[in-house]
Amino acid sequence: MSRRPARTPPPRRPAARRRGRESEDGRGRPRPAAVSELGGDQVEGRRAVLELLSVGRRTVRRIMVAEDQDPSPLLDRIEELAVRLRVPVETVPRARLDAQARTEAPQGVLALARPLDAVPLEDLCRPGRRGVAPFLLVAAGITDPRNLGALLRSAECAGVTGVVLPRHRSARLSPTVTKTAAGAIEHLPFAVVGGVPAALSELRDLGVWSIGLAGEAEGSLYDLPLGDGPVALVVGSEEKGLAPLVRRRCDAVVAIPQHGTLPSLNVGVAGAVACFEVARQRAAASS
Amino acid sequence: MSRRPARTPPPRRPAARRRGRESEDGRGRPRPAAVSELGGDQVEGRRAVLELLSVGRRTVRRIMVAEDQDPSPLLDRIEELAVRLRVPVETVPRARLDAQARTEAPQGVLALARPLDAVPLEDLCRPGRRGVAPFLLVAAGITDPRNLGALLRSAECAGVTGVVLPRHRSARLSPTVTKTAAGAIEHLPFAVVGGVPAALSELRDLGVWSIGLAGEAEGSLYDLPLGDGPVALVVGSEEKGLAPLVRRRCDAVVAIPQHGTLPSLNVGVAGAVACFEVARQRAAASS
Repeated sequence: MSRRPARTPPPRRPAARRRGRESEDGRGRPRPAAVSELGGDQVEGRRAVLELLSVGRRTVRRIMVAEDQDPSPLLDRIEELAVRLRVPVETVPRARLDAQARTEAPQGVLALARPLDAVPLEDLCRPGRRGVAPFLLVAAGITDPRNLGALLRSAECAGVTGVVLPRHRSARLSPTVTKTAAGAIEHLPFAVVGGVPAALSELRDLGVWSIGLAGEAEGSLYDLPLGDGPVALVVGSEEKGLAPLVRRRCDAVVAIPQHGTLPSLNVGVAGAVACFEVARQRAAASS
Repeated sequence: MSRRPARTPPPRRPAARRRGRESEDGRGRPRPAAVSELGGDQVEGRRAVLELLSVGRRTVRRIMVAEDQDPSPLLDRIEELAVRLRVPVETVPRARLDAQARTEAPQGVLALARPLDAVPLEDLCRPGRRGVAPFLLVAAGITDPRNLGALLRSAECAGVTGVVLPRHRSARLSPTVTKTAAGAIEHLPFAVVGGVPAALSELRDLGVWSIGLAGEAEGSLYDLPLGDGPVALVVGSEEKGLAPLVRRRCDAVVAIPQHGTLPSLNVGVAGAVACFEVARQRAAASS
């Protein structure tokens, strides 16, 4: 387990060396194609559509609702909000909705919206509301959309302030991710990076301590001081865990101690347990 | 939050009052139909089938493997173990395996086995290997098989020593539960109870402290002393949480403090976070 680095970024770091950025280049030029990179344009499932409308971070173009559904308070709230926001609501036969849906169970509702915009990595590294220190999640290669969606939902509940996704070898914010995340994507800012190792170097320079999770690591998550300061939890892929270079760039690599017989936790659950450990320590430190 | 009760069971409690038992009646009579109640007879997915064979808790009748699969170390180990255990392995066209499968993605392998036997509730309340205090999970009405399976996997990893399932309004150990649990069901003992409130009373009499999880509870999970003694975490249904009577019978009802905007964690994740908090406190207490 490494020691916590100093949190002040070093003063001189040429901007040209920065990699993994997704937004304006600092000179006002529009970013290229960040919108389509992240996705999120088709949102399915009642909770996800409700959060999309109620957060209002992006334009909703159209909502499709299946005919002949049992009464549902969530559906009622979706329709009320849509009317208030002047979003067209189309009531369609269930078969038509299912044909348009890209998840198995859209729960009778689907929205088409402007895709989510990615933000520059450094935007995630600024203190948030009420001076909350950045608490990032780096999903370094989660490819199963249900795992990614579940982890995003848990992360939002634990108070994660931003998410880093690699451009390649990772699930996008597909309808399955979006639905499983149950609206979390509407609340979280995302940065998309070309390479996770370079992003971890940038995070270190910006004063963010990166903690990799690896089942076989010797150190324990619970021995780390996570109660204050900017932190990034780094979760690897389902099959291979953290890539070697990602692992080397993390400031610490730790395991969640296991007490059973199975070889490993699901990646989304491991990430959730770690997020809530950060949350627990932060709450204890501030009380 | 209630105070921790004394752990010694009261001396006089007529056996006739005990409810929710699933096994022999103490006089050697075979239990009725416990086998079919729990399920687990069809096991799909590579990890789940591998654990089924390697744990060897129950007879495996037959294994079906789909033809023309890419090489896989897990499949190789499954076939080796099957040969050693003299379990017939049938190589079949993918379409035939998929027709027999009851999960979406059986990963090219499926096993037919003797269903799991339930055990009496009091069997779960005895100290385990090396005197480990019972650490139970009461899944009080989880109906989504993926949620239940995911929670069982996490629970096994956290060191849960036994699981209580209600006979009604709960997922059984269906192929989807079994696959999502990734083999956890082969390691965990299960009790099936007629009613959760009666089971909680019985647990109390047996010295097990029951902790209900409820998002809206005022007390925090993290304020409870969970580091030693027999404990049962009680997790309610996806839609309605803990039923009123279940809630009243719990010795304490607490929340996992939330730090985001979404209304609630997934039930399987909430259960996993709570299981790992028990594990963390137990490890800290014993070190």
